Amino acid sequence: MTFRCVTQRCMKAKLLIDNDNEYVEIGKGLIVYVSWAKGATKDDIPKHVTTLLKLRLLGTDSSRNQNICEACIENNSPVHVLVIPQAALTSKVQRGKNLQYHTQLGKEDGAEAIYLHFVQLLKDVSKEMILSLSKHDATDEVQLPIIKAGTFGNRQALEFSSEGPFTHMFEM
Amino acid sequence: MTFRCVTQRCMKAKLLIDNDNEYVEIGKGLIVYVSWAKGATKDDIPKHVTTLLKLRLLGTDSSRNQNICEACIENNSPVHVLVIPQAALTSKVQRGKNLQYHTQLGKEDGAEAIYLHFVQLLKDVSKEMILSLSKHDATDEVQLPIIKAGTFGNRQALEFSSEGPFTHMFEM
Repeated sequence: MTFRCVTQRCMKAKLLIDNDNEYVEIGKGLIVYVSWAKGATKDDIPKHVTTLLKLRLLGTDSSRNQNICEACIENNSPVHVLVIPQAALTSKVQRGKNLQYHTQLGKEDGAEAIYLHFVQLLKDVSKEMILSLSKHDATDEVQLPIIKAGTFGNRQALEFSSEGPFTHMFEM
Repeated sequence: MTFRCVTQRCMKAKLLIDNDNEYVEIGKGLIVYVSWAKGATKDDIPKHVTTLLKLRLLGTDSSRNQNICEACIENNSPVHVLVIPQAALTSKVQRGKNLQYHTQLGKEDGAEAIYLHFVQLLKDVSKEMILSLSKHDATDEVQLPIIKAGTFGNRQALEFSSEGPFTHMFEM
C-alpha cells in the first residue's frame, strides 16, 4: 500500500503551477490527487496507472459509467484529466487524535521523479490502450485524453466546478 | 472500518442542495466528504465526529496546523465547514479493474439518518469542545464553527476554490 489517490469528476478546473500567476486548466473530466508512501518505486507505477485507467469513474447519460479510455473512444471526445500531487493524502490518524506524515515519500526519496513518471505513464499507457481498443494504429484517428498536471512542491491554488464530484478514494 | 472521509481546505465553496437552484455557501475552512459502509450505526458517529474535530487539518501562518475548534478559539473567528454526503467513497477496487459499491450503507439501511446525525453531532460536539477549551460558559462569548451541509441523495453541483486543498483521506 504505497499509493493513495482521490478522484473527483469535474466540469472544469484550474490549478496554479508556479506559485505566481501561471495556471493549467481542464474541461470536463477527472481530477486525480496522488500521493506515495515510503517504499514506492518506479516499478509500482504501471500498476497504479493501469488501475486508474480501468476504473469506471466517469458518468454517462445511461447508468453505465465509463473509464477514461472508454469515454474517449465511445464519446469520440477527449476526456480531460488534471493530476495534482497531494502529499498530505499519505497521512495516518494516530490514537484518533494526531495526523502523522512520517510514512510520506519525501523529496529526498525521489517523490518528484515518481510523480513525473506517473504523469508520463498516464499519457503513454492511455494512448496505447486507446489505440488497442479502437483498433486504429495512428494517433490522429483517435481521441486521446488531455492530461494536465500540477508541479511538484508548489502552492496549489485550485478552483473547480462539478455537476457532482463523485469522489472516490483508493489505496494500493 | 465503516466510515470514510475526505477533507479539503477551501477559501470558499458552494453546493447545490435541491437539484434546482438552492445552494449552501461557505467561506474559509474545510470541505468534508463523508460516506458509511454497511454495519455503521448511530453509536459509531460520536467517534467519527470527535476524531474529525481533533485532527489538525487547517493551516496557520506558523508551521503548526489547527483543528476546527482550536482555529475558532485561537483566531477568534469561526471556521466554515461544508459537509457533503458522498456515497461513492465507500467503493472497493476489485481485481484492479472494477469498482464495487455493494458495501455502501444504503438508504434502506438508514444512511440518511446516520448522515443527519453526523451533521447534528458535529454542531453539538464542536460547541461543547469550544466551550470547554475556552473556559466560557455562554455561547455568545465564543466563536463556533459555521457548519453547512448538503442534502442526502440529491445531485450535488459543487464549486470550490482553495489556496491549496491539502487533501486528506481517512477510514475508521
